[in-house]
Amino acid sequence: MLLYTTARAPNPRRVEIFLREKGLSIPSKHIDIGRLEHRSESYTKVNPVQQMPSLELDDGTVLTESIAICRYFEELHPEPALFGTSARGRAEIEMWQRRLEMGLLLTVASVFRHSHPFMAKVEVPQVPEWAAANRPKAERFLQLFNEALAERRFVAGDEFSVADITGIVAIEFMRPARITLDPALTHVQRWFGDMSKRASVIENPPPPPSQS
Amino acid sequence: MLLYTTARAPNPRRVEIFLREKGLSIPSKHIDIGRLEHRSESYTKVNPVQQMPSLELDDGTVLTESIAICRYFEELHPEPALFGTSARGRAEIEMWQRRLEMGLLLTVASVFRHSHPFMAKVEVPQVPEWAAANRPKAERFLQLFNEALAERRFVAGDEFSVADITGIVAIEFMRPARITLDPALTHVQRWFGDMSKRASVIENPPPPPSQS
Repeated sequence: MLLYTTARAPNPRRVEIFLREKGLSIPSKHIDIGRLEHRSESYTKVNPVQQMPSLELDDGTVLTESIAICRYFEELHPEPALFGTSARGRAEIEMWQRRLEMGLLLTVASVFRHSHPFMAKVEVPQVPEWAAANRPKAERFLQLFNEALAERRFVAGDEFSVADITGIVAIEFMRPARITLDPALTHVQRWFGDMSKRASVIENPPPPPSQS
Repeated sequence: MLLYTTARAPNPRRVEIFLREKGLSIPSKHIDIGRLEHRSESYTKVNPVQQMPSLELDDGTVLTESIAICRYFEELHPEPALFGTSARGRAEIEMWQRRLEMGLLLTVASVFRHSHPFMAKVEVPQVPEWAAANRPKAERFLQLFNEALAERRFVAGDEFSVADITGIVAIEFMRPARITLDPALTHVQRWFGDMSKRASVIENPPPPPSQS
């Protein structure tokens, strides 16, 4: 297997945290977005969608999409279970994973991609109005997320799951997107403080954002 | 169980097609987006994210997110399998489901939500520049999708899956978004023609778009 990944990007980091939680180490190859290596002919052959991460299997099959890759590793290495252990539990984890992905990670990423100078060459066209529209969407979602976390230790209940991983990278990504986590969101603060102490999250934290 | 759903919206239609493929019929309650019923106090109690569909279980638990709801039904009623039958098969279906969701359904929905007068009251603010930026993204994805379909009968291989369902509603949603399916995309045309003949798709087709 070979994992194509990149630094400073939340989706590769989701898979990396997931693998560390599973205790797995997979050979990887770094693709430099800043140098537009993800648009190179050789990487486009690996993943025509030109995104990271991609997982090349030994038979040449390529899996893309972070959550598809994570679920594949869950099937190969079921313990610890990060996608749930019952029909209802799995549905609730998937629900929260997707809520965090669409409601927070995607909105924060939209702010970053459409406002940060680092992305001007990558996100064409940058639409500053779209960045502005997403900032309050992210803030509204954080309010809902805070209310949900008042009642539970982890995002989807009593157990750490892939939904927490999506939440972690989304909150981390607020820094380069220049969105402040409101100190009044005490449950999100408590949860994120707990998450930040996990070995899988501490190891190889995201590098500081490119300031330009 | 009670399924909260709405007409004229691609996500509820995904779940409806999925249920018909499984041969299941679930009691449902219609929520009228045009009258902003999804923002009412009573529906916000069901789903604080204010989106459809939501599935209320008999114990009061509410599941949201179309794919989480579909996966829950897959667990309760495994046949016919619509999420795959092997670790690699399931990963490939999830990959294609997500590619179609992010690359086509979301881009087409962005064109619709940010350009159609019907959405002016719902999508606030409408960002016409974002609609314009998504039109070529959808068209680029359709090229990739066409190349992929050259090699296979269904989206993710030899079997119909939830990835086809996402593809069907995304292509259907191009009509209200006023995006034309290029006749030169012969593999997409062939696949969509086949899909349009399925009983689960013919029954209760989406109503014509609101013209205003």
